[in-house]
Amino acid sequence: MNANDLLSRRRQALAPAYELFYEEPIHLVRGEGVWLFGADGRRYLDCYNNVPSVGHCHPRVVEAIANQARVLNTHTRYLHEKIVELGERLGTKLSDNLRACWFVCSGTEANDLATQIARTVTGRYGMVVSEGSYHGNSDLVATLSTEVSYTPKDRPDWLAATEAPDTYRGSLRAGSEACGEDALAEHYATKVSEGVEGLASRGYQPAAMLVDSSWDANGMLIPPKGYLAKAASIVRAAGGLFIADEVQAGYCRLGDAWWGHECYDVVPDLVVLGKPMGGGHPVAAVISTPEIAAAFGERINYFNTFGGNPVSAAAALAVLDVIDEEGLLENAFEVGRHLERSLAELQKEHSIIGDVRGSGLFWGIDLVRDRESREPIERAEAKRIVSAICEAGVLMGLMGNHSNVLKMRPPLPFSSDNADHALEVIDACLKRYET
Amino acid sequence: MNANDLLSRRRQALAPAYELFYEEPIHLVRGEGVWLFGADGRRYLDCYNNVPSVGHCHPRVVEAIANQARVLNTHTRYLHEKIVELGERLGTKLSDNLRACWFVCSGTEANDLATQIARTVTGRYGMVVSEGSYHGNSDLVATLSTEVSYTPKDRPDWLAATEAPDTYRGSLRAGSEACGEDALAEHYATKVSEGVEGLASRGYQPAAMLVDSSWDANGMLIPPKGYLAKAASIVRAAGGLFIADEVQAGYCRLGDAWWGHECYDVVPDLVVLGKPMGGGHPVAAVISTPEIAAAFGERINYFNTFGGNPVSAAAALAVLDVIDEEGLLENAFEVGRHLERSLAELQKEHSIIGDVRGSGLFWGIDLVRDRESREPIERAEAKRIVSAICEAGVLMGLMGNHSNVLKMRPPLPFSSDNADHALEVIDACLKRYET
Repeated sequence: MNANDLLSRRRQALAPAYELFYEEPIHLVRGEGVWLFGADGRRYLDCYNNVPSVGHCHPRVVEAIANQARVLNTHTRYLHEKIVELGERLGTKLSDNLRACWFVCSGTEANDLATQIARTVTGRYGMVVSEGSYHGNSDLVATLSTEVSYTPKDRPDWLAATEAPDTYRGSLRAGSEACGEDALAEHYATKVSEGVEGLASRGYQPAAMLVDSSWDANGMLIPPKGYLAKAASIVRAAGGLFIADEVQAGYCRLGDAWWGHECYDVVPDLVVLGKPMGGGHPVAAVISTPEIAAAFGERINYFNTFGGNPVSAAAALAVLDVIDEEGLLENAFEVGRHLERSLAELQKEHSIIGDVRGSGLFWGIDLVRDRESREPIERAEAKRIVSAICEAGVLMGLMGNHSNVLKMRPPLPFSSDNADHALEVIDACLKRYET
Repeated sequence: MNANDLLSRRRQALAPAYELFYEEPIHLVRGEGVWLFGADGRRYLDCYNNVPSVGHCHPRVVEAIANQARVLNTHTRYLHEKIVELGERLGTKLSDNLRACWFVCSGTEANDLATQIARTVTGRYGMVVSEGSYHGNSDLVATLSTEVSYTPKDRPDWLAATEAPDTYRGSLRAGSEACGEDALAEHYATKVSEGVEGLASRGYQPAAMLVDSSWDANGMLIPPKGYLAKAASIVRAAGGLFIADEVQAGYCRLGDAWWGHECYDVVPDLVVLGKPMGGGHPVAAVISTPEIAAAFGERINYFNTFGGNPVSAAAALAVLDVIDEEGLLENAFEVGRHLERSLAELQKEHSIIGDVRGSGLFWGIDLVRDRESREPIERAEAKRIVSAICEAGVLMGLMGNHSNVLKMRPPLPFSSDNADHALEVIDACLKRYET
């Protein structure tokens, strides 16, 4: 099947909302580890996909899915070992008291449910999020997703979108004056206070603050030390809960710990799991304390048809096994250190790279018109660059509210050699672009 | 693993919102066709599950999932044949102009998206639903789900819940006076008009009417002939769209046609697919006209990470293949006729059966205190009966706003022999209950 024919059939069969990556869309037919293979026989190094977190088509995950699908696939209204085992295993990965699980199909369903839980349990309705965030696509969660490019909605009075802790391009910048981590943390925490005050002035108390602790939609941010703990305290002091959206930062992505919130010394009230959880299989979860779970359960009779079915549980258990047995947290940490050094070198070579930030196996390369003004390059330019990198055999994405940040977020088995290969390609493409 | 031990571990690991079926929960370990097998070696005839629509662990579906999972599982930002093929195949099952697809993970996500689409495209915000309905569990869809037992929420002003066309226990009853189908249809359609007028009086115009054309949550209703077409016209005349929630009634369930709305001569603007679509795999869809899809696509940049991934598409394609090749629509029709006759006989034998209604492979046995008053039996009594039927090796469920309706909704390969076996067990259990 010719890619152009397929593209034209796709335009007929799928709603036009469906967008493709890259100026020349790619047609993939096979995946293995960190590699993807095109219909034309080309091989691509995957520096983008976090859903196949343990590598594309990991045999352990594939066999877990196939074996369970062959035997039984029902739902959580019957007793089954695997879902119980999965809940227990996830509990061991989190702080002691976080061990009551709800299973759903997607990060969207999980963020939607976590918000419903927070509202039900607190009896409050306000929500605090980061400006420019993305958390999913249900009606509620799309409203909580303030990323402009996604879905322009009127902001309801119950929503406070507070400035994200962007110390590169935000209202207070690292190194721009005599301000260390403390001052930066204080500055951005004050924005959260102002958000809570704004809610109060409109007649709302916060049910929760919902945060993606990698700020993926904002172009991957590393918050100033102490910011997240301060933000959580402010919201809790106002009677709200703290929800860690770990769809991006969880599952060892940041290298320093299993979860994003652990990297920043916060214990959430509710944790949201998504994308990487099933190694590609649609499964997600909300995990909370027994107390919060009991308070919600008393009032709401929640059931999710597919959530936590035996096949989903088998896939999610296999992912946990592989991460532990293959030492993927350690790998993310080590390759992350290597990337940190290599990306710093790359930045020296290219004035278009205004900033490099990240942790573990999640990095943003912030492309600018000039380093002084930090003005982002145009979206079309960024798309041209990421398409050229794809053309050269390396798959990356774009992120950030200006779509100017190259996104490097590969499957967890990504090696230092893979990193070197990717950086060579990026280096060559930026050189070509700059001349 | 002892069932009691498993139960107690489950209570620790899963949030207490998780409810189990039956007074003695069952622990299942294997499924095949219309049969499920317990850890204790017992065999159960499945008269309940519509998700494994083509039968538990159908080898064709299992192999499709395993083979695709082994090769590639990404998302819809890359070109892939299977998702395009699935969109095309689904288009051939629907009226000509319904052929623009969005793929998601669950019926909840699909109903949520369909509502967002209707609101975006019409620029209106009101929604019309049936009183006592269930459509899913996101914040928005839970609000649209007016089934009392599910999630008690304050009804927003933009919601009109109109009386379901219940000709057995509703405000106008079949045979209760000189009223034929026309009068019944007119009566319940008037309720829709009143709902739309109510919205207008509160300052809202309808974006859409959302209907499950099997009224599962209301205990399975067969609407009076002409009702659904009238209801759709009323909402359209007020500028709204008609959304057919086919999660229950679709995929040949009602025997007379592929979709519930086809049985009632309505062409919807948006069709919602869910549960049976992937034979157990979490996949769902919204299908609309190219015009509506274009109008939404211009405004909203919708993306669903797992929705329509290659494995989901492979599972959904295998389900379509099996339905066609095994003649499961024809089977649903034929076994449905057999059930109609046999259930009428059963009703004659048991005064507790106030009503029997259904079509194809979806039947409700409405249990009453006495036939005259039509007063439902108590929830606890109904639970005792359905548990006794389970104990005797036949899995059924309860439905209806009083939880008094025995629900028979087996996988589609259910045979007339299976039906006879189930009815013998039901007969025996009701006899024991009545004495």
